[in-house]
Amino acid sequence: MIDPVVLKGFRDSLPKDEIPKKKIIRKLEDVFSSYGFAPIDTPVLEYTEVLLGKGGGETDKQIFRFKDNGGRDVAMRFDLTVPFARFMAAHHSEIGVPFRRYHISKVWRGENPQKGRYREFMQCDFDIVGADNALSDTEILSMMHASFAALGIERYRFHVSHRGLFSLFLSRLSLEDKQIDILRTVDKLRKIGEEEVKKLLCEITGSAENAESIVSYITAGEGKTFIETLETLEKLSGGESEHSARMREIYTNLEKLGIADCFEFDPSITRGLDYYTGIVYETFLTDLPAIGSVCSGGRYNDLASLYMKEKTPGVGASIGLDRLLAALEELGSPLLSDTAVADVLVVPSERKETEAMMVSSSLRAKGLRVSVYLLPDAKMKKIYQAAESGEIPYLLTFSETGFAIKDLRTREALQGDEAIETVVKDRVH
Amino acid sequence: MIDPVVLKGFRDSLPKDEIPKKKIIRKLEDVFSSYGFAPIDTPVLEYTEVLLGKGGGETDKQIFRFKDNGGRDVAMRFDLTVPFARFMAAHHSEIGVPFRRYHISKVWRGENPQKGRYREFMQCDFDIVGADNALSDTEILSMMHASFAALGIERYRFHVSHRGLFSLFLSRLSLEDKQIDILRTVDKLRKIGEEEVKKLLCEITGSAENAESIVSYITAGEGKTFIETLETLEKLSGGESEHSARMREIYTNLEKLGIADCFEFDPSITRGLDYYTGIVYETFLTDLPAIGSVCSGGRYNDLASLYMKEKTPGVGASIGLDRLLAALEELGSPLLSDTAVADVLVVPSERKETEAMMVSSSLRAKGLRVSVYLLPDAKMKKIYQAAESGEIPYLLTFSETGFAIKDLRTREALQGDEAIETVVKDRVH
Repeated sequence: MIDPVVLKGFRDSLPKDEIPKKKIIRKLEDVFSSYGFAPIDTPVLEYTEVLLGKGGGETDKQIFRFKDNGGRDVAMRFDLTVPFARFMAAHHSEIGVPFRRYHISKVWRGENPQKGRYREFMQCDFDIVGADNALSDTEILSMMHASFAALGIERYRFHVSHRGLFSLFLSRLSLEDKQIDILRTVDKLRKIGEEEVKKLLCEITGSAENAESIVSYITAGEGKTFIETLETLEKLSGGESEHSARMREIYTNLEKLGIADCFEFDPSITRGLDYYTGIVYETFLTDLPAIGSVCSGGRYNDLASLYMKEKTPGVGASIGLDRLLAALEELGSPLLSDTAVADVLVVPSERKETEAMMVSSSLRAKGLRVSVYLLPDAKMKKIYQAAESGEIPYLLTFSETGFAIKDLRTREALQGDEAIETVVKDRVH
Repeated sequence: MIDPVVLKGFRDSLPKDEIPKKKIIRKLEDVFSSYGFAPIDTPVLEYTEVLLGKGGGETDKQIFRFKDNGGRDVAMRFDLTVPFARFMAAHHSEIGVPFRRYHISKVWRGENPQKGRYREFMQCDFDIVGADNALSDTEILSMMHASFAALGIERYRFHVSHRGLFSLFLSRLSLEDKQIDILRTVDKLRKIGEEEVKKLLCEITGSAENAESIVSYITAGEGKTFIETLETLEKLSGGESEHSARMREIYTNLEKLGIADCFEFDPSITRGLDYYTGIVYETFLTDLPAIGSVCSGGRYNDLASLYMKEKTPGVGASIGLDRLLAALEELGSPLLSDTAVADVLVVPSERKETEAMMVSSSLRAKGLRVSVYLLPDAKMKKIYQAAESGEIPYLLTFSETGFAIKDLRTREALQGDEAIETVVKDRVH
């Protein structure tokens, strides 16, 4: 016998996990399609050089990398951004820009598994490339808003900021060359707190005054409206600029779309990565602040510089699906609570097997999900257990004269000719 | 610059490929759910020993296998059956039987890529485990039928046979010990023809008479009805048996369900694998016989014997999604012909950017997929090109006084207040 174990950091997805996951993915796909975003897919395995660049970086140790049977140095993708950049370079002329894509798929990282962290997880990315204007920034934010609405999440906030604006501010302090270290430190604010950030910034910039200035910039949004914060930051970064104008334009758009209330200007948002150049954003669930951002991204200057000369500016975001699922579960989302594998369990009692199949066909034609109980000789106790373990709410049994339907949640028998219509009304949406 | 190439045998999926693939997967998932089948997922990477057993066989050279960073011998799954067997052993007590699952996902094989064969491809498996009776056999066949109906495929035939019946027949010829070689040879009938099969069978069985008998068994269905063939094979296998009774019961079920016409008894179907013990089937498209079976499977005695002592009999089938997609394309399926990324392209002409976004929101609320054209200063020629490359049928532009919609296929302007309703009627289903 071989022990049927999975690798550390990997896991099976049982129906109770997979049913809600599929439901959520469908809802997101429907929103993305309604915004004209097209799905793409890329190989799970790629040349290591293509994924890591010629050097390779910190991710290097964290990836599943090996020599294939033909001796090629290959690796499993660790995110969906790098494959998208490679994809754009490869199909640039065929697909044309502006191009909107979404990609919902698994990625793999060899990092040490911790609570809630796995070596195999689902990522959901969406981007617009080939346009650099407030219109495309707004489309992404509007689609994020529509996605959260579709998932029935009510209490959340989009925190946005602008990397260009922050860079202007740092230039005024003559700190442009320390920008990357400063960004990474600011990014830790939520985790380590203001005092610790100030200490680190003092070390990086060599001046308590600089550290103080930066902290007052990144906390300038507290207790202020979006526009008030924007005005403050505009002053701190040396007055009106294309960056502050862009943010103003985006906010006007959000107001006209009637969704501005969900957004706050939070200059502590920087997204650690070097990559972003314009608006950046993170999304926090009001009732679960500790889990961190569930949807993050921003605008970048050039997606595919590793693979081609043409510049591809873009704007996009990424949803950590596993984290979002865990959050929805904790919030008691109705999307996750109904994990029934079927609406009706049809029991071919009294040896009415073909009748059972025929009734099932007619119920399916009405849109119901019907499971035929496959062991006609089983005791009723076992049948009830099956219904319970599949969370199936209705039971249909046969008698000499016809069939009867029971609501297993209330233990009530449904009476008369309308029994089926009652079930349809309850279960088909 | 790094060359943005993918590995040999791998490929990107562009929107024109991915949109129909997702459409087909959704249709199949809806059918599977309507039969009470639950989705599961398993890790892409597993311990090599778990996937290959303690020895490892022919597949050994064909898999992507490596040592991970922790020195573990791991491999990427090469099918969805072995992971399902491992899954059943691991979660047996938690999920209970009978259990119905489907699993639509990628698998990887290192075999040499040929035309239409890839190293990464989509598999779609569905099985019922924990029940061994005509009822579950029929449920699988009925669901296969419903799947083909949902995909709008009209001209196809399910070819079924019974491995147990064939075994009885071989026993009568005292050829049980050569069964595996005989099965593999018979399985080649479509590929190499009757004469070649006869020659090989003669070598295997050492007798021209035996070869002749086997060939007359496997061709006994030609020109006969299902029941006539069953009666002939019943005689050839020594008279009534549980196997012939099972086939008779299944056929009666199919008749009562009104779908028996799609099935023919074809005793040349054996499925090469050792694994099957009961009914076996393959599915052929009448207009594309050359591509072979697009949906195959059968009944087996024991799924998870490698991992546990409890017997898990089951019945299931597998659809090669990539092959099916290629077939649907060749058949000119309407599912594949509409690969529009959106229904309407909204052009924020006259600098009406916020109006464009607001109109788009209201169109989306009506169920339309709307792409906002993101370069407001572009020339009309470029905009038309964008609509064409995304196969978007309608164009909405703004004027000083309002907006106008054009059907890009007919080049006609839609008049009056009903313009939007016309588009909704055409595109929202």
